[in-house]
Order: sequence, then C-alpha cells, then structure tokens
Amino acid sequence: MKIAKTIDEIRMIVADAGTADQKVGFVPTMGALHAGHVSLIKKAKQQCEFVVVSIFVNPTQFGPNEDLNKYPKPFDADIAMCKKNGVDAVFAPAPSEMYQEQNITWVSVDKLSELLCGKSRPTHFRGVATVCTKLFNIIQPDVAYFGQKDAQQVIIIQRMIADLNMPMRIVVCPIVREEDGLAMSSRNKYLDAKQRKEALLLYASLQEAQLLIDGGKRESAFIKEQMQKILNISKQMEIDYISIVNADTLEEIEEIKGKVLIALAVKMPSARLIDNILLDVE
Amino acid sequence: MKIAKTIDEIRMIVADAGTADQKVGFVPTMGALHAGHVSLIKKAKQQCEFVVVSIFVNPTQFGPNEDLNKYPKPFDADIAMCKKNGVDAVFAPAPSEMYQEQNITWVSVDKLSELLCGKSRPTHFRGVATVCTKLFNIIQPDVAYFGQKDAQQVIIIQRMIADLNMPMRIVVCPIVREEDGLAMSSRNKYLDAKQRKEALLLYASLQEAQLLIDGGKRESAFIKEQMQKILNISKQMEIDYISIVNADTLEEIEEIKGKVLIALAVKMPSARLIDNILLDVE
Repeated sequence: MKIAKTIDEIRMIVADAGTADQKVGFVPTMGALHAGHVSLIKKAKQQCEFVVVSIFVNPTQFGPNEDLNKYPKPFDADIAMCKKNGVDAVFAPAPSEMYQEQNITWVSVDKLSELLCGKSRPTHFRGVATVCTKLFNIIQPDVAYFGQKDAQQVIIIQRMIADLNMPMRIVVCPIVREEDGLAMSSRNKYLDAKQRKEALLLYASLQEAQLLIDGGKRESAFIKEQMQKILNISKQMEIDYISIVNADTLEEIEEIKGKVLIALAVKMPSARLIDNILLDVE
Repeated sequence: MKIAKTIDEIRMIVADAGTADQKVGFVPTMGALHAGHVSLIKKAKQQCEFVVVSIFVNPTQFGPNEDLNKYPKPFDADIAMCKKNGVDAVFAPAPSEMYQEQNITWVSVDKLSELLCGKSRPTHFRGVATVCTKLFNIIQPDVAYFGQKDAQQVIIIQRMIADLNMPMRIVVCPIVREEDGLAMSSRNKYLDAKQRKEALLLYASLQEAQLLIDGGKRESAFIKEQMQKILNISKQMEIDYISIVNADTLEEIEEIKGKVLIALAVKMPSARLIDNILLDVE
C-alpha cells in the first residue's frame, strides 16, 4: 500500500497504476476510521480495481466553535486498517498541502445546504463541497463512496456532481451501527459512559418512527412528537432538529409518502450526534 | 469536424478520438467568433492534437438587465470559421442541456470577483466560474485557451484551477485588435458609426498611459486622470472604471511597479466595452 502526503505524489501513484483501463474507487474520510468506513472500502474493493482512501481533517468544514482541534487523529491505526482491507493507496495531506494559500474559491450548493444541519452549521456544507471537489480533481476517481449516515452530505454531493457535470458517480452505503444500535461515528469517542448510553435514544426514536409508520401513521407532526418524547428521556441532550423531509429536496413534508428521510441531530455535552433512516412509503 | 449538441455526444467524441495519449485543447466561447477567438484556436492547434471549441451563450453570467437575449448568434458562420481553422469538434449545447434543472451549485472566487467589472456585474464571475467548471468537467481538456482581453476572467479562472486542483492548465493569448486599435469583441457589432469611432478612445487612453509610464511617470492617480481626459472626449461614453492594479491580486496600487494591469470599462449607448494593457514596470 502506497502512502502519499502530497498532491503530486498521489497523482503519480494513481497514474502509475495504469488506471486508464481500470476503475478507480475513492473513499474520502477524515480518518479515525471505524466499521462504517470499512464498509465503504469493502464496497470500493468489490467494484474497482484500484482503491484510494483519503485521510484529511478538512478545516473549512468546521465552524469557529466546533471540534477541529480535538478531532481524533489515530493515524497509525487508520493506516493499519487501510492496509488490512486491501486499500491500494492512502492520500494523507497536511492542511497546508490542500490549502496552499488562503483559499478563495468555494463550491456551494444553495438551498440544500441551508436546511437540517445547515441551520446550525452555516458554512459546513460549503467546506464539504469544496474539499470534495478538490479531492475529486486530485484523485479523478470513477466512483466515490459515501455513507448514508451523513444523509444531507450525500444529497448535496450528488447534486453537486450532477450540476457541475463531474465525470464520476457516487455509491452510497448503508449506516453501520454498533451492536446496540448507535450509528458508527468518529465522534462517539467523545462520549462518557452516561452520554454513550443515552445516545441510544437517537436510534430508538427513529425505530419508534418506523414502527408508527409501519402501523399506518402518516402525520409528520405526530411522529416527531413521539420521537421527541423518547429523546427527552435524556436530561443532558439538547435537540438540534427532528426533521421528516422529502429525500431528494430535503423539504419538510406534512404527510409521509414516497421517499422520506427522517433525520435528527442532538447536542450532547461532549459531542453533536446525527442519525437518520430512509423510507419508501406507499 | 464533429458537431455535438449534447454532453453525452461530446464526451463520446473526445473519448473516441483516443485522447488518452494525446493532448486535448479547449477553447470555450460564446460564439460570434472573431479574429481574437481564431488566435486562441490557432494556439490550441499548435500545442494540442485534438481541439474542441464550445459555443454557448451562458445565461448565468448575464445580469438581469444585460444583453443575453440580443447577444449575436451567427451559428453557421461560427461553424465555418471553426472548420476553416482545423477545429476537431464543436460543442454547441442548448441552455437546457447545460442547465438541466434549476442550477443550485455555484463556483465562486471571492475577492477577485468583487473588483473591477465585478462591481457593476455582481454575479458575472460566479456564472463564468461555474460554466467553466462545467465545461472543463465535460471536455476534460489538458489545456484551455483564454484571451487577455478579459483580463479579470483570466485571473479568476487561473485562481479557480489552482484552488480547486483542477487537472489542467490555461494558456492566455494576447488581445487581438482591429487595424485602428479597437480590441476585438463580439459586442463591437452593437456600435453605430459614431460610437465605433469614439470606441477608439479606450485604446488611445491605454496608449497614453503606456507613454506616460515609459516617460517615467509612476503615480497612478495622475495617469488615471490623463486617461479620463481622453475618454471624456466622447460625450456619450460613461466611464465605469479606470483601474491600475496589481496584476495578480487586482488590488489598486498607488505607485506603478512590477506586474501591473491597467484596465478600463465604459458604457456606450449600445454596448459596455472593456480593454486593458499588462505591463511589467521596473
């Protein structure tokens, strides 16, 4: 497995691999790899001859009061996990390699970036879209792999690729959960024992929504109320949003029908957590 | 020469040309081709094995009160000029092909887009950067060719390519002028005889600036004053700006030194005109 720290190196590695004839799969990550990332790597290995993983904690997608500086960076463990899973090349640039001067060029996806997480993280998705564009231009993959965990990110990147005619596509892989149901996240490490236990309420509330919908309920307001009751069992959890939206436009819907995304975000004392389920309702 | 109206077609044409081993040169235009465009095509032919010209009057770079609807579209003459100059493929999409849904993804280059022409055309360069990104992603050229006539556009596109790590470079070709000195522009067609004559004052004022600098003058304010006097000979010309700026940052400079761009824009009754000279002053 090759490890590149510079843009020139990773470009040379991908070019040397004779990738004109073979498919290049790309898994962009911020490191602190867990089973969710591994599922993306495995899918990429199935579908592509050459798999690149990037490890880059992108500063431009963090807000001024967010966890950029404490974001975990277990680099050796990440490299070991990539090696074990057959990754061909890792691209792990320093921030100064990715943003050589003060960056003034931005890729932004209007509307979709302003909803859900965008309300409390106003510059987040602009940072994500910009760094993904940069990484796509550097790696030039045929396919990039993203997790459904970041549902809004997936929809924004898909729209960006379509709007800007990027010559590639993305594959979205299902959320990977801990045995007790908590969605895998690099930020779960931040939680103490009590928070970790109460974090189970996120998936519990989504399962309750699923049960209610399976039972015939279709009124978003009612379902959100029931979800909120479950989340409110925790006294230290602050609800950022509970949203039931059209899975393409991210617009709130009153009556559940068609492709529906139920998404939520909460603030625990030491981490902001998100989770979601995607439903196709008749 | 192949002519493609759709994105799929032009992609197939470029792929079929076996362009993995040969350089693809790209000349993005809004049509109404003149000798300035031809100089770009000729340079591309010299440097690349396969040359693509796009003809697309991009709606997103026009303001609400600008000349989108009356912009000249002499399609047959444009095609003939491409054929005569050895172009390999023309990409001439309809607006609905380039912007399939309401476009919500934008590429913007801060700061540089707000100066000079950006002041009176606040969304212009965002439209330019976005359509260039789209066209670059569709054609995937090795080199794109731009004219120095649009000096600010050139600097913005160069910065965008660097900031977003686009896998290509641009070549900038000198301004081509009519025999009497007027910079070639598709918009010169709009001018009546009197305006056409008075349009010579643009280049005359730039030549005066050059003479003053050659003669040892270094004070921007003084030079701009002399340029303004020349432009004011026309009673129907409204000066948008006369700027003397650092050629990289586009920031106004008080004392002329180093790589300097002297740029101006004026409004004639039937067209907005721009011109510039680039100097390297000791």
